[in-house]
This record gives sequence, structure tokens and C-alpha cells, in this order.
Amino acid sequence: MQDLLDRDRLASHDRSGDLGALHVADIAVHLDALSPAEAALAVSRLPLERAAAVLDHPSLADPTGLLAALEPSAAAAILDAMAADRLADLFRDMEEPPRKRLTALLTPEARAIVAALLVHPVHSAGALMTTEFVSVPASWSVGETLRHIREVESERETIYAIYVLDPVSHRLQRSVSLRRLISGDPEAPVGSVARFERPVTVLPQVDREEVARLISKYDLLAIPVVDEKNHMLGIVTVDDVIDAMTEETTEDVHKFGGMEALDEPYTRIGFLDMLQKRAGWLAVLFLSEMLTASAMQHFEDELEKAVVLTLFIPLIMSSGGNSGSQATSLIIRALALGELQLKDWWRVALREAPTGLALGSFLGVIGIARIALWQQTGIYDYGPHWPLVALTVGLALVAIVTFGSLAGSMLPFALKRLGFDPASASAPFVATLVDVSGLVIYFSVATLVLSGTLL
Amino acid sequence: MQDLLDRDRLASHDRSGDLGALHVADIAVHLDALSPAEAALAVSRLPLERAAAVLDHPSLADPTGLLAALEPSAAAAILDAMAADRLADLFRDMEEPPRKRLTALLTPEARAIVAALLVHPVHSAGALMTTEFVSVPASWSVGETLRHIREVESERETIYAIYVLDPVSHRLQRSVSLRRLISGDPEAPVGSVARFERPVTVLPQVDREEVARLISKYDLLAIPVVDEKNHMLGIVTVDDVIDAMTEETTEDVHKFGGMEALDEPYTRIGFLDMLQKRAGWLAVLFLSEMLTASAMQHFEDELEKAVVLTLFIPLIMSSGGNSGSQATSLIIRALALGELQLKDWWRVALREAPTGLALGSFLGVIGIARIALWQQTGIYDYGPHWPLVALTVGLALVAIVTFGSLAGSMLPFALKRLGFDPASASAPFVATLVDVSGLVIYFSVATLVLSGTLL
Repeated sequence: MQDLLDRDRLASHDRSGDLGALHVADIAVHLDALSPAEAALAVSRLPLERAAAVLDHPSLADPTGLLAALEPSAAAAILDAMAADRLADLFRDMEEPPRKRLTALLTPEARAIVAALLVHPVHSAGALMTTEFVSVPASWSVGETLRHIREVESERETIYAIYVLDPVSHRLQRSVSLRRLISGDPEAPVGSVARFERPVTVLPQVDREEVARLISKYDLLAIPVVDEKNHMLGIVTVDDVIDAMTEETTEDVHKFGGMEALDEPYTRIGFLDMLQKRAGWLAVLFLSEMLTASAMQHFEDELEKAVVLTLFIPLIMSSGGNSGSQATSLIIRALALGELQLKDWWRVALREAPTGLALGSFLGVIGIARIALWQQTGIYDYGPHWPLVALTVGLALVAIVTFGSLAGSMLPFALKRLGFDPASASAPFVATLVDVSGLVIYFSVATLVLSGTLL
Repeated sequence: MQDLLDRDRLASHDRSGDLGALHVADIAVHLDALSPAEAALAVSRLPLERAAAVLDHPSLADPTGLLAALEPSAAAAILDAMAADRLADLFRDMEEPPRKRLTALLTPEARAIVAALLVHPVHSAGALMTTEFVSVPASWSVGETLRHIREVESERETIYAIYVLDPVSHRLQRSVSLRRLISGDPEAPVGSVARFERPVTVLPQVDREEVARLISKYDLLAIPVVDEKNHMLGIVTVDDVIDAMTEETTEDVHKFGGMEALDEPYTRIGFLDMLQKRAGWLAVLFLSEMLTASAMQHFEDELEKAVVLTLFIPLIMSSGGNSGSQATSLIIRALALGELQLKDWWRVALREAPTGLALGSFLGVIGIARIALWQQTGIYDYGPHWPLVALTVGLALVAIVTFGSLAGSMLPFALKRLGFDPASASAPFVATLVDVSGLVIYFSVATLVLSGTLL
């Protein structure tokens, strides 16, 4: 339904005409389809506040190009009206020629705020935060606070959470929600309607994933970012966190698929950029998987003596990879949600070992049944020693699925321990790990079971 | 830092003692560690409003058990104070013995609201929504609206978005934010401070993923759920959407790992439940992968004549699986974000074909170089026809990586077209698909290149 509405609305506007009745997000989408000059013309016709909101919006593909196409005075006015956090994001991603020109258009205050925000690493609370929040000293009354909010409302990113500071040390004491404030007694001190609990805060270097987890856990509309002494530096608002969560999920899915995160929509990224993001991991996996060729070369005698063994190589290897991929996806997610910590690795190992044994036995029984069935019904002849071949396949499946579950579940812990993102433990990564060791397991089992008969 | 604070706070409380100073989310975590009787005692000591907030909180593992352990009168009071959406969620997940008993404790109004909410399918906007929103007729003034908000504040899930209805038809006209309301002229009509644009709405049957996408795109704190005639049924708030997004991501990661979504935390789910969620897909993949054994049996003559070919089977098959897994993860995510639609499938195919060719050629060159290097340095002897073996491997890699990229990118479209979740196109699923066809491709290329020499 939403889509229909949007198309109706879009259809009623000419390409650079009146965008006033559209949502900011839809204006951004609309501008993306125009040439820079057309887009600049359309933006310059918008009221300043809405123009700034459009430039503030993460859907807009190329805000820098749009600003560069505007008259310098118009660009300066819009930059001045933009939220500090988004302004910093904009300059963070900007390349050199326009960067210098646009920096010159900022007011000295804005330049200082942007410089301060740019200090924080990408994806940290400090980089996500805005400095446009409302704080009042604890000595104020509810009525004074409300009057202050009405005055500053238009310049603040959110006014639904108000932060109460110690009047002397300026340290954060409590937070008040606007809903409690408007139903409070105007004469009472602002602290009297504050939340009961100490505010949940984060340090600026905290990762956005952790910020999202806290906002979600405590159902916050914004979370204060504080320094070590509990002085407020800014706030991260829930809408920035949602955008960050979406980006983070995209990154994790890309990584889990066995590639670098694209960082740009599939439909927008250039052909060569995409090749680069995919070729790197593909080559690393390919080079590692070459060890399977080495392993097979090592067992060439066995291979020549018992060609029947080769028939089951793909089947057995893929089962190890599949069980490993299951375990990895479970652990990556449990680590991301904070359900598991690094120190829980042995608990997981103790759980995955019996799980792998059970799953491996299940597949082993199916595998043995398959060979027996084909043999007995005459579909294929696995030779006079077929019961031993079936036993080899069954035992190898138990061992490899158990190994796969263990290796797949331990890999994210190992990566996290080494300081990497556990989500880099992709399904192809686990499969490659298990493939090489799976071959060795398979041929070792075969040597044990078949020595004296086939081998 | 947050963690430290929490542990400090928890340490200062005895096991069933005063929880008053904790955040609701932390109380929930704390109660989970207690026996039902201890937890019930602790909850009965909380003020009613906070007790209801704890039961409302998604972190609480077993709200039903806790309610069942309370005195019936205490349970009734808490149920009465809970948010309607959460109450419906609670009864949705409840099993029979406690369900009947607890339903009897509801007020007739609450029973009717819960029954109405339970009509909507799981994961739809209707199931996520709460009926506790603020709406006013367009004939009211800003001042009247604010007075009304103050009166109903404590019973509404959010009061930051207020919905303005047509005084006669009661259809939704506009939405007003509380921030604009408190800075508006009290005498002016409420519509004068409303958002400029028509409110973004959803129908109750819309999936939660789409709800999340709209809330995120339009930076909303809540989205109204309306019927076909634009009458408001409820709202979905941003905190419910964040919880839904997190759940949805977990489900997608589990599915992409090649299993059913657990639907419960890894640390809480029972051993047999987990086996069940994993064994199903593992068995399906195993049975499909058995086709590789059949394919190999079909090529047994080639295998016996040229054992050297078997050395590269795992390497070649895994490369197809890896490139397929990359393509699948890209397309699943682009479909989830709405960057791609079903109708874009041919555009994707036109892009993945050259991408696969380029990536396959890259790996093919590495593969040929590896064989030449091993042969020339004497590490391994691939026989007199080694240049042809190398050519076979190189060409097979080009064909299989191209096929993998195409198959991996088309699978999510095919699943979506058939009405399944595109995220079911797991990495193991794609790998299995590509493994079977990869073997056929490999042996076909081998027959072409090596016929007359090795074959």
C-alpha cells in the first residue's frame, strides 16, 4: 500500500517541481534520480528546514555532489541548519576537492563541532552521536525545564529525553522523559519526575553494535555518550541506531557469505569495486582449499587401490561443511546478542561435541542404508567388500560431522579472541577448514577399516 | 562500563531482595536466575507499575511461569496493568493448562482486546501493534490535546506521536509530534502543528520486516496500523520494531547457516529441540548431496582411467560453492532491504554472469599456475599430459564459478517467487546445488579436453 501511495505522489510531481508534500525520505529518493543541477534546483526551492532534513537523510546517495552543485550561499545556509552528527558523517566520507571548499562554508562553531566528532573512530558511539541534546541543571524546576525545551526545540535532534546534570560538577545525574515532564507539577524540581534508575550510558569508543544492544535492551529513545568522569559528550538517538543496525546486519550477512562487506548497495556499487570485494576472500579460500589437492596426493596409493572411496568424497566433505556452517551461524549470532561471552567457549564445546555425535550418527545411518540399498537392489556394485566400504563411510560421517560442529563453533570464539569480528567466520571459511581435515579423517578411517582388504 | 555498573548493582542485592534501583531489563535478567517461587516473591514486592513493566519486558524468559507462581489477585492486577500488545504476545505463546487459568483473571475489556490482537498472524504488523495510542479529533485545539495527553499519559505506550482523526468519519488524517505540540500556540487547532505530509501507515497483515523498513526509512517513533478505510487499529512502536529486527536478523543468520531458526537463545534451548532444528536441513542436504555419488558413479570409467582428476574435485567444487554463497548473501540482503525487487532478476543475472566469468578466470589462472609450479619444481607429477590436466582444471573453474554466481544469485529470487523466505537460500543449500552440477561440468570439460589422451 505504501508503495502505491508513493508512486501516486511521485507521479503528480514534475521532475524538478514542487516536492513539498513528500516525506523527506521520499524527496531524497526522488533527488537521487535527478542530475546534480536539477537536484540542486529542486533543493533550493525547498524551505531551508526541509532542505537540511533532506541532506540529513541517510537515503540520499550523494549529498556532497548535491551541496557542490548549489550556490555557495545556499549550501552554507543548509550546512548551518544540518544536524551536527550528520554533518560530521558527511565530512568523514568526503574526498578532497569538495571537502576544502565546503569546510570553508561552515561557521567557526560548526567547524569546531565537526572536528571534535571526526576524532572518533568509524562505527563508534562517538561517531554516531549528536551534540544536539537537551540538558538542564538539577536545580531547575519542571516548569523552567519545559520553558527551556520550548525555546531550544527546533535546534535539538530529540527532546524526548532530557538529561539532568549536577549544577556544580556538570556530571550526568539522571534522565527525564518529556512525557513525565509534561504531566509533572511545574513547581517541583526537575529531578522529582526523573527516571528512578541511574541513566544507562556509553563511552565514546564503544562499538555501535553494543550501543544498539543497550538501546534495545533498555527500550531507550536515546543513550547518552559520556567521558570517564560522566560528563555528557552527546547522545545517540534510536533512529541512528536503527540505521546502524541495518548496516551492521548487511555487513554480517556479506561477511558470512564469504566476502568483504560491500558498504554500498548492490545496485549502486561499480563492477570493479564489487569484483575486488569478492575476489580477495575467494582467492584466500581457493589457496587454502588447495590443501585438499595436497591431501589427496598424499593418499594417492589408497585412491588408486580403492577408486570406490572417491565416490563419497563430495558427500562426506559437504556434510562436515554443512554441520560446521550451522554451528558457526549459531555462535556468531549468540556472540552478537551477548548471550555468549568469550569465556563460555568450553561450555559450547561441551554442547557441540554430543550434538555433532548425534547428528553425525544420524547421517551415518542414512549413508550406510543408502550403500546397502544400492548394493542389494543392484543399482550399483561397490565390490565384494561393500559392507566395509559402508562402515567406512558411516564412521567417517560421525567423525567429520562431530569435527565440523566443534570447529564451526570454536572458530568465532577464536576470531573474537584474536580481535577480529566473529562474523568473519563465514560459511565458506568453515567449509574450507573442514574440507581439508575431513579428507584426512576419511582416509584415516578408510585405512583402519579397509586395511588388509581393499587397502 | 555498563557491564561493570550492572554487576555492582546486582552485587548489592540479595537474591529475592530489593530490586527497586535496577532497570526493568536488569530486573528481568535477575528474575530469570531465581526459582519461580523466589521470582514471584520478588515481583510481588515491586510497585505494581514496575511489576507490569518487568512482565512486559522481552528479556524475561518465562513470564507465564512467573504469573502462575503469583497469588491469583496479584497476577490479575499485573495483567491488568500490562500493555495490550505484550499481553497478546504472552497469550499467543502460552500452553494450555496456565492459559485457561490466566485468561480467567483478565478483565472483560482486556480479554476482548487480546482476542482481537490474536487474530493477526505472527510477525505481522497486527500482531506487533498496541492499541494504546493517543488520537484526537481534528476539531480540538493544541491546548485541549495537551490536556488530554496529560490525563491518559500513564495508560499509553507512547505519547510522542499523536494521531489526528476526522471528527466525523474517524479516519486518520495527520500525525502530530509531541515536540511540535508543546511549542505550539494552545489556542490553535491541533492540525496547525501537524506534520506536513500524510502519515505513513501499514495494513495489519504487513510483515514486520516491511514495518521495520518503513520506520527506519521515515525515522518514525511509531507507525499507525490502519484498515482499508484508514481507520486506526493500533500503532507499532520503535522499540517493538528494534526487538523484531533483532529477532529477524537472528532467524536470517540461522537460516543462512543451513538450519531452521532456533527461535530461542542458544543458551536456553533444549538439546533435543536443537537437534531437531539442525537435523532436518542436514538430512535434506545430505540426501541431495548423494546425487554427487550418483554423478561420480556415472563417470566411473573416467575416474578409473584418470585418477589424477579426482585430486582436484574438492578444490573445484568448493570454488563453485564459495562464489555461489557470495552471490546468495548479496541478493538475500538486497531483497530484504528493498534495493532489489522480483522483477530485477534478469538485471542481476546480467551482472552476475560477467562477475562470475571474471572471478572464475582469476581462480582458473591461479589453479593452472599451481599445477604448472608443482609439476615444474617436481613436487608432484601429474603425468605426461599435465598441461591438458591444468587446462581442464582452469576451464572447469571458469565454468563452475560462473555457474555458481548465477545459481547463487537466482536462488533467492526463485524462492521468493515461490512464496518462501529468500533467506532460506542458505550457503549450504547453494553449495549442494553447485556441487552436483559442478561435478557434471568438471567431467564434461575433462571429456572434451582429455579425450584421446587420458580419456
